[in-house]
Amino acid sequence: MSATAIAHTNIALIKYWGKADPDLRLPLMNSLSMTLDKFYTETTLSWQTSDQFFLNGKLQAAADSQRVFSYLHLLERRLNLPNRHYLVRSVNHVPTSAGLASSSSAFAALAAAFDQLQQLHLSRQDLSRLARLGSGSATRSIFGGFAEWQAGDDANSYAVPIDERPKLDLHLLVVELDQQPKKISSTIGMQRAQTSPFYQTWLERNPDEIAQMKLAIQQADFDKIGQLAELNANEMHALNLTAQPPFTYFEPATMQIIKWVQAWRAAGIPCYYTIDAGPNVKILTSLKNCKVLSSRLAQLMPSAKIVVTNFGPGVKSWSNSDME
Amino acid sequence: MSATAIAHTNIALIKYWGKADPDLRLPLMNSLSMTLDKFYTETTLSWQTSDQFFLNGKLQAAADSQRVFSYLHLLERRLNLPNRHYLVRSVNHVPTSAGLASSSSAFAALAAAFDQLQQLHLSRQDLSRLARLGSGSATRSIFGGFAEWQAGDDANSYAVPIDERPKLDLHLLVVELDQQPKKISSTIGMQRAQTSPFYQTWLERNPDEIAQMKLAIQQADFDKIGQLAELNANEMHALNLTAQPPFTYFEPATMQIIKWVQAWRAAGIPCYYTIDAGPNVKILTSLKNCKVLSSRLAQLMPSAKIVVTNFGPGVKSWSNSDME
Repeated sequence: MSATAIAHTNIALIKYWGKADPDLRLPLMNSLSMTLDKFYTETTLSWQTSDQFFLNGKLQAAADSQRVFSYLHLLERRLNLPNRHYLVRSVNHVPTSAGLASSSSAFAALAAAFDQLQQLHLSRQDLSRLARLGSGSATRSIFGGFAEWQAGDDANSYAVPIDERPKLDLHLLVVELDQQPKKISSTIGMQRAQTSPFYQTWLERNPDEIAQMKLAIQQADFDKIGQLAELNANEMHALNLTAQPPFTYFEPATMQIIKWVQAWRAAGIPCYYTIDAGPNVKILTSLKNCKVLSSRLAQLMPSAKIVVTNFGPGVKSWSNSDME
Repeated sequence: MSATAIAHTNIALIKYWGKADPDLRLPLMNSLSMTLDKFYTETTLSWQTSDQFFLNGKLQAAADSQRVFSYLHLLERRLNLPNRHYLVRSVNHVPTSAGLASSSSAFAALAAAFDQLQQLHLSRQDLSRLARLGSGSATRSIFGGFAEWQAGDDANSYAVPIDERPKLDLHLLVVELDQQPKKISSTIGMQRAQTSPFYQTWLERNPDEIAQMKLAIQQADFDKIGQLAELNANEMHALNLTAQPPFTYFEPATMQIIKWVQAWRAAGIPCYYTIDAGPNVKILTSLKNCKVLSSRLAQLMPSAKIVVTNFGPGVKSWSNSDME
């Protein structure tokens, strides 16, 4: 008996960048994301006599497996289930730790596979809350399309769907510059960002930024969504730049693409960028302009890997009657 | 009869980035600068039958002379002097409009040459106030060493010397990346920065940042000066990045140097950066480390032009009995 789940990664348009409670992974602010079709994790879970974690077919060392099993055993305790051992087999269709938040799809898939294996039939709300305990951004990957993760306490901090099947032509051009693991983890980065003199102002702005983004989504206003997303990303990176000591996830190539996006927009192509805890740039634009901009980028920066993505679905899980 | 003045450019360690009154060039905040020995403007002023402006030996077109003569005729009106015509000959030992604030030395020299030609014997305080009407940063170039420009109204917004001959080993490694005129002028840049959600917070921090910097100077605490200067510069550029619409003076090479400075500092070399309204980076370090870092930079980025500067003097002026 085994259970499999597929969860897609998501990119926050209004960022999560600060924890109210590190253990419970409670955020200091609401965040709002877009789930992507091209990046996902498929995880198959079964019981066995010892804990083993295979990532992309390769058995992981104990140190690299610890977060996965700590999480599964935490779920057992939370749900009053007996302590058992697991075989976890994950295939990650996301560049690991390159600012594309592979942990969002990884822990959403793990939570859903756990639910399926244990035949718990949890609601998506409960799944989202449990995914949160594995990785903050995983909270949002339970849902497709646009999802909002609400700040709150342990009981009420989960994601809610905003629009699971948006009709809007909003595509994301993911420009991968660097697949090296990031030097400053999100956890460390968001701790340090809180030393910025602008941090409190940023927190106070959050309800308004969320409300404006939800309105823009409701009105299918591409430019407004893009402007709000770009501003919010710039705010997050401005916090890092003004932290004490300062740091940045930007690389020279990141800055180059920012300047190209600004120039393309000035030249009449509607496009906006967002950037997470890594050097990669994600460009929000229409499908038609994805093609135009991809070919320009391929010419200007041949080393960059470009992927065009669209809205992805929420998490899915199923049981497999036979172990293969 | 002619008068000559030499004024040195200055680099703000606590930045001027916002006008309370554009016409009177009154700032929204106090700023604090270091006057540099290597970059200066020498201006010779005399009367003649029409207004003519030679810059670096070349007669300037009317459009490029307008700011200079508007300023001189404004000074006449301010000081109840007759309206006359001027020959202005300036030699600028500063890359024009590349973020090195050549207007600071230019208008400080022009104010001092005007005072000398007219035999007004103005106090340095009055000279500073008049220099302000030409260019905000010129207000500070009247003084050597460290100077503070105070916000206020027309009567009391001028610079005061903080320490004209600092004993501190604080050198500035100026890394010139780009001598092209900047795309967004300081005037436009500071207007747009005021649309940042962080602008008000920045303004409120100014008295504390100034007080801390003055204390660090008094204590000759190099690291504290560097940390405060780098944070303040980062704040200014964070405002630009979060303006609506966002903009940046950073180029990819700017970001590259920021990352090198962070890495050198992590490796034990005390160095900090400041960046103005252009892509160039100025690195604050000791004389010994200027040599170390210059040679590293020359190797890593051969296209960059590197100048090592130290504290410069305040404005000087004299009369020439004969026109040459």
